[in-house]
Amino acid sequence: MKRTNYAGLIDESYLEQTVTLQGWVQKRRDLGGLIFVDLRDREGIVQLAFSAEFGQDALAVAEKMRTEYVIEIEGVVKSRAAGAVNDHLKSGKIEVQVKSAQILSEAKTTPFYIEDGINVSDELRLKYRYLDLRRPEMQKNLRIRSKITAATHEFLDNNGFIDIETPYLAKSTPEGARDYLVPSRVYPGAFYALPQSPQLFKQLLMGAGFDRYYQVARAFRDEDLRGDRQPEFTQLDVEMSFMSQAEIMDLVNHWVAAIMKKTVDFDLNIAEIPTLEWADAMARFGTDKPDLRFGMELQDLTALMADSEFGVFANAVQNGGQVKAIVVPGAASHFSRKDIDKMAQYIERFGAKGLAWLKITDEGITGPIAKFLTTKAADLLAQTGAQTGDLLLFAADQASVVAQTLDALRRMTAKEMKLIDESKWAFAWITNWPLFEYQPEEDRWISAHHPFTMPNEADLPLMATTEGAHKAHAQSYDLVLNGYELGSGSIRIHRMEIQEQMLSALGFTKQAAQDAFGFLLEGMEFGFPPMGGIALGLDRLAMLLAGRDNIREVIAFPKNSKGTEPMTEAPTTVAKAQLAELNLIAPAYSDIDAPNMAEE
Amino acid sequence: MKRTNYAGLIDESYLEQTVTLQGWVQKRRDLGGLIFVDLRDREGIVQLAFSAEFGQDALAVAEKMRTEYVIEIEGVVKSRAAGAVNDHLKSGKIEVQVKSAQILSEAKTTPFYIEDGINVSDELRLKYRYLDLRRPEMQKNLRIRSKITAATHEFLDNNGFIDIETPYLAKSTPEGARDYLVPSRVYPGAFYALPQSPQLFKQLLMGAGFDRYYQVARAFRDEDLRGDRQPEFTQLDVEMSFMSQAEIMDLVNHWVAAIMKKTVDFDLNIAEIPTLEWADAMARFGTDKPDLRFGMELQDLTALMADSEFGVFANAVQNGGQVKAIVVPGAASHFSRKDIDKMAQYIERFGAKGLAWLKITDEGITGPIAKFLTTKAADLLAQTGAQTGDLLLFAADQASVVAQTLDALRRMTAKEMKLIDESKWAFAWITNWPLFEYQPEEDRWISAHHPFTMPNEADLPLMATTEGAHKAHAQSYDLVLNGYELGSGSIRIHRMEIQEQMLSALGFTKQAAQDAFGFLLEGMEFGFPPMGGIALGLDRLAMLLAGRDNIREVIAFPKNSKGTEPMTEAPTTVAKAQLAELNLIAPAYSDIDAPNMAEE
Repeated sequence: MKRTNYAGLIDESYLEQTVTLQGWVQKRRDLGGLIFVDLRDREGIVQLAFSAEFGQDALAVAEKMRTEYVIEIEGVVKSRAAGAVNDHLKSGKIEVQVKSAQILSEAKTTPFYIEDGINVSDELRLKYRYLDLRRPEMQKNLRIRSKITAATHEFLDNNGFIDIETPYLAKSTPEGARDYLVPSRVYPGAFYALPQSPQLFKQLLMGAGFDRYYQVARAFRDEDLRGDRQPEFTQLDVEMSFMSQAEIMDLVNHWVAAIMKKTVDFDLNIAEIPTLEWADAMARFGTDKPDLRFGMELQDLTALMADSEFGVFANAVQNGGQVKAIVVPGAASHFSRKDIDKMAQYIERFGAKGLAWLKITDEGITGPIAKFLTTKAADLLAQTGAQTGDLLLFAADQASVVAQTLDALRRMTAKEMKLIDESKWAFAWITNWPLFEYQPEEDRWISAHHPFTMPNEADLPLMATTEGAHKAHAQSYDLVLNGYELGSGSIRIHRMEIQEQMLSALGFTKQAAQDAFGFLLEGMEFGFPPMGGIALGLDRLAMLLAGRDNIREVIAFPKNSKGTEPMTEAPTTVAKAQLAELNLIAPAYSDIDAPNMAEE
Repeated sequence: MKRTNYAGLIDESYLEQTVTLQGWVQKRRDLGGLIFVDLRDREGIVQLAFSAEFGQDALAVAEKMRTEYVIEIEGVVKSRAAGAVNDHLKSGKIEVQVKSAQILSEAKTTPFYIEDGINVSDELRLKYRYLDLRRPEMQKNLRIRSKITAATHEFLDNNGFIDIETPYLAKSTPEGARDYLVPSRVYPGAFYALPQSPQLFKQLLMGAGFDRYYQVARAFRDEDLRGDRQPEFTQLDVEMSFMSQAEIMDLVNHWVAAIMKKTVDFDLNIAEIPTLEWADAMARFGTDKPDLRFGMELQDLTALMADSEFGVFANAVQNGGQVKAIVVPGAASHFSRKDIDKMAQYIERFGAKGLAWLKITDEGITGPIAKFLTTKAADLLAQTGAQTGDLLLFAADQASVVAQTLDALRRMTAKEMKLIDESKWAFAWITNWPLFEYQPEEDRWISAHHPFTMPNEADLPLMATTEGAHKAHAQSYDLVLNGYELGSGSIRIHRMEIQEQMLSALGFTKQAAQDAFGFLLEGMEFGFPPMGGIALGLDRLAMLLAGRDNIREVIAFPKNSKGTEPMTEAPTTVAKAQLAELNLIAPAYSDIDAPNMAEE
C-alpha cells in the first residue's frame, strides 16, 4: 500500500480522511477490545485506535503488535474525545481509527527505549546506532545537518560556484597532522594518503581557472581523539579567484545567513557581525575564538600593578609579563573558597601558579590578597568597573599563560553564573593573524594557519629572511560562533617566490620543498590568479545549531573516543591474503581482544 | 579592483559601459601602437584593445603581456569595426578599449596550448592538469558534472530526502571487489577499509527510520583499472522505506528528468522510458545494458536452423545452443572480406569459433555459407526482414557466447554504419534479474547484484535451499542510458531469515555470516522496514552528458590507467617513521623507479 501521509504530520485538518500509514510501534495500550497504538515515523507520532467496530481483523493484528514492530495501517482520521487531547503532539487532537492493519516486521526488545534523554552509555548507543538514531533528538540532529548542506548547495550553486570533487586517494605531504595511509597493491612500498583537506587541490583548481569552487569534502586526520575530533570530518570548502579578503568575508556572511535561515529560521544581521583583529581578540578575551554572547572582557592591570605591594603582580610585570583580571558579576557570594581552589587547580594546566582573587563587598575588597592592594583599591575598582557583589579573578604571568587562564575562567564562571544568553548566535571574524607561531614543544616555528597563507602585502619585504618572516602577519580570517572556531580562511600565496620564502621560513630546504610541493610551485609559474577561500567545519556547525556539545551527536556513524566504530567493530583484522596482496607485514592482531577494543 | 563582469559574457548590450575584468591572456597581437589581447576567463573570451589613445600606461603594460599571463584591466565596451566582427564569440561584436591594466601573474610557456582538441598524451595532460583544465572543453565537462550534483541536491532536498554522510573509514567485508585498506595506528594489525559503497550503512539508516536518505558518496575499489574505472568513483546514492519497486523507479525517473533538464536542457519524457525484463533484454540485444538508440535486434533462428545443412548451425542447436543473427542495414558493400575477418578475430574473446555471414544481393544470399542455406533462404529473409544490400551476421553457440558476440557486433557495426542517432538519450529500465549468477572462473554462484537484494515475493519459497535460491529472481532494476549501466537498484532484504538464506546460498557458514554481517543481521531483528534504493554512477552519467568516452574527462584529478596521479605522483613512498607508527613493514620502495611508474 502506498503511504498517504507521515504519521507525525496528521492533524485535525485531515478529519474524516482515509489515510495509509507506515511506521514503528512506539507504545501499545490494550484496554480489552480497544487497543491504542502510538505509531511513530520520522515526522512524529499519531495515535491509532483499534476495535471490532473499526476493523475486526485489524484488532486481531493489533493484539500481536509490540514495541518497535513495523506496521502498516489504513484508517480514518477522527477527533479524539475532549479528555484525550494531547497538546504536546501535532496530532494530539485526532486519532486514526484503523480499518485494516499488517505487521511488516517484528522486533525484539530493544536495549534502550526509543525516546529522548536516555541515560545509557555512549558505547551502547553506538553499538545499536540504528536504534539510537530512531530517537527524535537524533533524527532532529541529522536533519539539521542535512539542512546545512542543502542550504550550502543551494546558495553556492546559485552564486556561480562549481562543485568539484578532489581525490581522497592523494599524496602524503609534510606540515600538518598525521596522515592516514592507504597501501598501494600495484606499487609495493608506495602509499596513498587520505587528504587532511582539499587545500592544494582547490588552489590548483583556481590555477585552472574555475574561478569559484566548492565541495562538501571529507577530511582525515590520524590524531589523538577527543570530544570534538573524529578521524574523519567534513568541511564546507570554498575557494575564489580575484576576490579580496573583504569580498570573501562578505560572501561567506551571506552564505552563513542562508544556512541560519534554513536550519534554525534565524535572521542573521550581517552588518552586526563584528570583526576583531587577532591581537585585539587575544587582549580582550585571551583567545582567538572568543564567545561574544557575554562580556566579562579581560582588564589589563599591568601598568597599575607594576609597583604593586603584592609581589606576584609586581614580579610578573618586572619579568615582562602581564597582570590581567576578569570581573564576574554577582559572583562574590556564589563561589566558596573551595570552588576557587578548584579553579586554581584547573588552571595549573596552563602554567598558572595559583589564582589571585578579590571579592567586592560593602566593606570594599576582601580576600587573602586584599591587604596588599589597599592603596590600589580605588583605581582597581574604577578601572575594572567592579561593583559590590562581584568577584575579581587575576592572572599574572607571561602573556600566553594569562590569556589561557583568563579565557578558561571567563567561560567557566560565565556558564556557572548563567551569564550566557543561550538564545544568541554570536558570530565574529578574527583577522590579521600572525603568519607563524612558535611551537615550544618542538622548538620550531610553524604556520599559524597553513603554509599557503598569503602574508600581508605590507609584510612581503619581511619574507626575505626567516627571522623577518616569523614577524609577518597574514591575510587570514577565521569565523567564530559562540566561542567555537567555525572556519579558517585566508588569501593564498599565488606566486612561486613567496611560496618558496614561506617554505624556507618553515625550515624546508629547496629540495624538500620540491619533493613535497614541487607540483604546486611549478603550477605557480604558469599564471596562477590571486585567490582565497575558507573551509567551515560542518560537524561543529551542526553541533552548535543542534544545541549539542559533542560532534558525535550530529554524525550518523561516528567513531568512539578510541577510534573504533562499535557497531561494525571497525577497524578489524583482515584476511592474510589481503595483506599478502599489499606486500605488507602487520603484527598479529590475535594478540588483541578485538571486541574489547570498542569498550570505553 | 572588483570584477564587474566575466569576460566571456560581455556583448553589445554593455556598449559604452566601463568594465573591470580579470583573466588569462589567450593570445596577443602587436600591431605596433595597437595591441589586441584575447582575454579568457571561465565564461569565454573578450577582445581587449590597447593603444595610446585608450590608455598610455595600459599600452606599456600590454607590451609585456604574454600568453597565459594573468591580468586585470579596466576599459570601455565599444563596437568592433564591421570587418572585425567574430560571429563565433558571444563577445564577437564588441571589444574593450583598455584604460588601465595590470599584470597579476606571469607565466612560462605552457607545455601545450590552452585550447580544445589538443593532440598530446593523456600523461602530459594529467601531469599539468591545472593547465589541461583551463581548456574550454574541460571547463564544460566539469561544469556539467557540477550541474548534475546541483540538480540532484535540489530535487532530493525538495522531495524529503535527508543528506546523510556515512563513514569512509569502515569495515572490510567479503563479497565484492578488493578493498583499499587503511592501517590503524592505535590497534596494531587492525585495518579500516574504504567502502565499496554505502550499501549497508544506508540500509541501517532505513532501519533507523530516516525514511528517505541520499548521499553523493565516494566509493573505492582496488580493481584492475580500465577506461571506465577509477580507484575512487562517485555514486548518487538514495534509499527509501515503504516504497515499491514501481514507486522507486518512478521517483528516479523524475530525478533523472530534473538532471537532464538542468545539464543539457533536454525534456525527458518519462512515460516513454521502456522497461525490459532482463531475459527479454538478453534475448533481443544479447546484453543487460542495451543501447536503444538503434534497432538491429538479435533474430532467433534456432528453430529454423535446427536441421540446417550447415553443420555449425545444426550442431549448435543439437548441443543445446542457439543460432541467432543480426541484420546490418545497407552494410553488404561496406564491409570487405578482410573487415569481416577482423570481426571474427575480435569475437574470439567471447569464445566464438568463427563468424558466419551472408550478404543480400539482387541475386539473393551470397557468401561462403550461402550454398548450405539455399533451402532456408526464403524463410531466413522473411524471418529477419533482411533486404537487398544488407549484411547478416550469425552466431551459433551456447547462449552466453551468442549473446556476447552479437551484442559486440551489433554495437560495432551500428557505429561504423553511422546508424546510431547521437542526439538521442535512450534510457531504459532492466527488471526481473536473476538473483544469482554462476561464475565459471571461480566455479561458484555469486549475487547478480549484491547479497542484500530481495528475491521476488513469489520466489521466497525457493530460498529454503541453495539450489532453489540459485533459481530465484530478484526485485532489482537497473537504469541504462545509451548502452551504459547508469545505476543499479533493488528492493533490499529487511528480514533476518531471508538474509540468512541468501548468505547461506552464497556459501557462508552461520559463523562467517555473523562475522561479516552480524551487525546487520541483528539490526533486522529490531524492526527493519521494507526498503529499496539505487545508486547512479556520477562519473559515467557526467561522461555521457558531456559526450565523452572516458570518465577521466569528467574527473578533475583522476588516476591514470596505472592508478597513479601524474601531477602529485601519488602513491609515493612515505617517511619510515610513518610506517613505524603504523607497526607496518613494507618492501623497500627504492627498488622501484617512482617517476617512471607514472608513464603510460
